[in-house]
Amino acid sequence: MNLLPDFSDVEKAHKTIQKYIHRTPVFTSSAINKIVGASLFFKCENFQKVGAFKFRGACNAILSLPPGKIIHGVATHSSGNHAAALALAAKINGTPAYIVMPVTSPEIKKTAVAGYGAQITFCKPTLQDRESKLKEIVKQTGATEIHPYDNFQVIAGQGTAAKELIEDTDELDIILAPVGGGGLISGTAISAKYLLPGCSVIAAEPAGADDAFRSFKSKKRLPSENPKTIADGLLTSLGERNFKIILNQVDEIVTVSEEKIVEAMRMIWERMKIIIEPSSAVPLAAILEGKVPVNGKKVGIILSGGNLDLKKLLF
Amino acid sequence: MNLLPDFSDVEKAHKTIQKYIHRTPVFTSSAINKIVGASLFFKCENFQKVGAFKFRGACNAILSLPPGKIIHGVATHSSGNHAAALALAAKINGTPAYIVMPVTSPEIKKTAVAGYGAQITFCKPTLQDRESKLKEIVKQTGATEIHPYDNFQVIAGQGTAAKELIEDTDELDIILAPVGGGGLISGTAISAKYLLPGCSVIAAEPAGADDAFRSFKSKKRLPSENPKTIADGLLTSLGERNFKIILNQVDEIVTVSEEKIVEAMRMIWERMKIIIEPSSAVPLAAILEGKVPVNGKKVGIILSGGNLDLKKLLF
Repeated sequence: MNLLPDFSDVEKAHKTIQKYIHRTPVFTSSAINKIVGASLFFKCENFQKVGAFKFRGACNAILSLPPGKIIHGVATHSSGNHAAALALAAKINGTPAYIVMPVTSPEIKKTAVAGYGAQITFCKPTLQDRESKLKEIVKQTGATEIHPYDNFQVIAGQGTAAKELIEDTDELDIILAPVGGGGLISGTAISAKYLLPGCSVIAAEPAGADDAFRSFKSKKRLPSENPKTIADGLLTSLGERNFKIILNQVDEIVTVSEEKIVEAMRMIWERMKIIIEPSSAVPLAAILEGKVPVNGKKVGIILSGGNLDLKKLLF
Repeated sequence: MNLLPDFSDVEKAHKTIQKYIHRTPVFTSSAINKIVGASLFFKCENFQKVGAFKFRGACNAILSLPPGKIIHGVATHSSGNHAAALALAAKINGTPAYIVMPVTSPEIKKTAVAGYGAQITFCKPTLQDRESKLKEIVKQTGATEIHPYDNFQVIAGQGTAAKELIEDTDELDIILAPVGGGGLISGTAISAKYLLPGCSVIAAEPAGADDAFRSFKSKKRLPSENPKTIADGLLTSLGERNFKIILNQVDEIVTVSEEKIVEAMRMIWERMKIIIEPSSAVPLAAILEGKVPVNGKKVGIILSGGNLDLKKLLF
């Protein structure tokens, strides 16, 4: 059936998760505004619990399970932020979490997931191995699989970030979010198109992992092929539900170079004094690369997360 | 005469500078609270204009000058944050700023000061050379010297950070701030002792630059001797006015190791997803090192700034 969520589902999700999530702040930077010639409003999901927007969706998915299901726990495969999010949301609800993680995941994400008491099974960094390991675990435990993005309640939960952003700003002309599996951008589009019908919703994607861009242009869901980008949260392929919502409600998908992702990330660190992971820098990179005309506009940007291995970089 | 400011001067300063400064947010971290067993409230002056609390004092000093003086501009010597702060405050008020900077100052600070249109004169990294170069410039231009910390209006301006912190939190048991020249801690003590007479005010200082600690213990102002610390904002010696206020109104000065400064800085970056400079990490380092008993207490910490050369560390 693959029912798709609409804004009433986002509203319901918001009520469900409100007391568990942070209502993250919206930051502005006059220095960056001057550089790009627009007014940018950054929704700081790097300050969300577990350091990423993913906590919203995971929380909503677990809290929407019937009691008979929730006692057997939840399971997922994830390269990191969804894993930590599901682990914490499960812990809060007193149910076990079984997580399949690629052995190549950043150390900080492995530690976080283990710290929330989840049971981790490592796998090869291929979609095939992730899915087969997950299948095994679900069979053994009776846990409910919570897909990182191709899940009705996850999408509804992710939509609450844009809902808050819109509530906390003046009428935005454009909203930008990164796209990987499509959970964030599909939820964002649902909220934006309902609350601000005149607002453009644009997805930004690394050129090195451009399956969403290619899928959008060909109107056919195409898989990632050897994706390679510093934005490690955006390596996955688009989900089915996500793609349907994107085709209907996203106005444009643009791709950006690795060079601009690093430049945008550095600009946000230096000018705004906040730590974001590379995936979060992709929308600003699109503006810096001239892919999104923003001159004089009010632009909302969702900073998706702040988790990265600082040990690799510093100290 | 060396008149000392009191809380009425801080209040006046706050009214004077209110529309130019950011009222910076107070952040908390449940992860760090768990580690230290206390409730910490971080006043985020890393988000202040020019990335440091120094903008408050510089702004107040310039706006307090009589019109006949202000037209000739302002001058100072500073290793960085005060320089940027004075440069921007002067620019806003349409008056020239003449800045003497040690040639060893971080690149990011030199660039910032130049970017605000100040005229920079480089000097050797000794107090003697800084002062003699400054004297020359003041003589040539008729500019008013604004000392980075040993200045009535600067101290009153810095006190506004603690005033806001106290206004925005429940009754704090302890307030911690780093000490270098003493501008921040003296302003902090004035606000805290007036608004919260029962609150302890504690200064934290790197063991490698412990002139304030030695001065406090001996009740005699002693100079820094070959100070060495990663906390580059805290290398300077205590000012005269600052020392008097510290002796009267600060309860304790504690010193911390370089190792703990790095650990505290990393903890704030990783857990709070915000960028602070090493000087800002010194108060949390004091807690981690067990120098300040905080168990079960409500503790305010002033994060002094967020300026550091990221290029040296990353990218």
